[in-house]
Amino acid sequence: MSIMILVTGGTFDKEYDELNGILYFKETHVPEILNHERCTVEADVRTLMMIDSLEMTDADREIILNYCRKCEEEKIVITHGTDTMEITARMLGKANIPKTIVLTGAMIPYKFGSSDGFFNLGSAIAFVETLPHGVYVVMNGRYFQWNNVRKNKKTGVFEEIG
Amino acid sequence: MSIMILVTGGTFDKEYDELNGILYFKETHVPEILNHERCTVEADVRTLMMIDSLEMTDADREIILNYCRKCEEEKIVITHGTDTMEITARMLGKANIPKTIVLTGAMIPYKFGSSDGFFNLGSAIAFVETLPHGVYVVMNGRYFQWNNVRKNKKTGVFEEIG
Amino acid sequence: MSIMILVTGGTFDKEYDELNGILYFKETHVPEILNHERCTVEADVRTLMMIDSLEMTDADREIILNYCRKCEEEKIVITHGTDTMEITARMLGKANIPKTIVLTGAMIPYKFGSSDGFFNLGSAIAFVETLPHGVYVVMNGRYFQWNNVRKNKKTGVFEEIG
Amino acid sequence: MSIMILVTGGTFDKEYDELNGILYFKETHVPEILNHERCTVEADVRTLMMIDSLEMTDADREIILNYCRKCEEEKIVITHGTDTMEITARMLGKANIPKTIVLTGAMIPYKFGSSDGFFNLGSAIAFVETLPHGVYVVMNGRYFQWNNVRKNKKTGVFEEIG
Repeated sequence: MSIMILVTGGTFDKEYDELNGILYFKETHVPEILNHERCTVEADVRTLMMIDSLEMTDADREIILNYCRKCEEEKIVITHGTDTMEITARMLGKANIPKTIVLTGAMIPYKFGSSDGFFNLGSAIAFVETLPHGVYVVMNGRYFQWNNVRKNKKTGVFEEIG
Repeated sequence: MSIMILVTGGTFDKEYDELNGILYFKETHVPEILNHERCTVEADVRTLMMIDSLEMTDADREIILNYCRKCEEEKIVITHGTDTMEITARMLGKANIPKTIVLTGAMIPYKFGSSDGFFNLGSAIAFVETLPHGVYVVMNGRYFQWNNVRKNKKTGVFEEIG
Repeated sequence: MSIMILVTGGTFDKEYDELNGILYFKETHVPEILNHERCTVEADVRTLMMIDSLEMTDADREIILNYCRKCEEEKIVITHGTDTMEITARMLGKANIPKTIVLTGAMIPYKFGSSDGFFNLGSAIAFVETLPHGVYVVMNGRYFQWNNVRKNKKTGVFEEIG
Repeated sequence: MSIMILVTGGTFDKEYDELNGILYFKETHVPEILNHERCTVEADVRTLMMIDSLEMTDADREIILNYCRKCEEEKIVITHGTDTMEITARMLGKANIPKTIVLTGAMIPYKFGSSDGFFNLGSAIAFVETLPHGVYVVMNGRYFQWNNVRKNKKTGVFEEIG
């Protein structure tokens, strides 16, 4: 069983530009994290885009959808900004692909040393290995069905809608 | 669904004594980690012991077994030193308790800033939520059946026996 | 010999707002750093303002100047954003106060875990203890006279003008 | 003005062996620290030994002394374990070399992420640039004369003897 990890950017992969004092994207840290965590799950990492999810367009989401459809793997983890994770999840969920797709992300950049990304990536990989076909958001140690999840803007945690 | 997290020590919770330059145990960091990771899974943390797993005796394992049996929760995560994790797993597995029990640990202490414990705890919590009754070791992003797992002493990663 | 440490903000004290993904100021970390470093130098920490040095006005600099003049201590360290550190240094230098005044800062926020602020604060405290009266910028392990220093915008390091 | 940095080991450079759970020495981190801190002081780093200072012998101290005597630089920083730093300082002090020699170290290994070594190295480099000829211990933001310093074993901080 091999896992496909699709990288789209988000806080997870943001870096701090020391010269300009801003946060920006360079390249994904997912491979070095998997290596550092001694993760032995067979996984392929593919960067589709490196963007803030607030700037993700319908065209970007089409790229993600198409990649999920066409790739060989049946188990897919997508790293994604948390702000519009629920929108991408709904779009993918409606497409009804016969695969297990898990979206995850982080509130704190990996490079800041104490990111929640390690924990979230750990649970995302575990959930994608065990959950049945479907599209899920994995945050805060839990998984949510694509059609029943939202980010609570005040607390920053994910919750069921109803 | 509530999870019981049983703490037994292990590298995960080791600290560095600045005055004597040795590694030792003070108290568990599991609650502060769950809080930092914004984990919203309903979880109870109970410290059973704080020891290096090389020093874990049969009597210690009895304590763990009894607690697993008697506690209300049906889903249990045990943080444990990696050196004898497979021994405790076998003992618990043979007891045939109708619960999902996951043992996990770390190769690097949490306090060293870049511990694999975050990742492992994230996957342990995800696996305990989804796997059927049984006893499992969760390390390196994977789960292993209690009767088919060992730590490779040379590489430090876990693998199937056969 | 007691040292006065005046805090004005700058990258050093910037924090990451997890909910909005921006950098902002809350309160200074200088006291907790001194404590963590087991610094036993007698030092008083006073926060004058918490601003990005690009937004520092002449009025703000007047506040700093007045405080340097009136405080009892003869040795003063000022934490300051690096972008206009040289401007404040020149203003203070021209005032010709009979004290040793050292400006320092950081390129990476303290909260990001691997800040150059620890190193810079360490050298600033050492230089203020040993240098004669005058105004200095301390960055990159070196001290610069107030009238012969600038930040190289391309490399981010400080250098002599001439 | 160029500085010679002599590495002898000590807590500063200790690493954690994930497979055996012990602290050990591999190679010094001083060059990568200087680079990370954007230190622009002209400095040469030379590793003389990599040992715990409790195991430092008279012969080891002879090596340090000889190197201090013969090297071209007039300003020397020595990274050293804290437990016997005062002994090496006294030996070097009695040799009466016409140079400025500063011994420094750390209570927490660099690799643990929040080491006091950054701060101490920052002040050691600053003190060696400014202090007159002599041998000094630099710890906790302060400098001590070689014949009036000891480590307080209970608190871990350095203090005057008399």
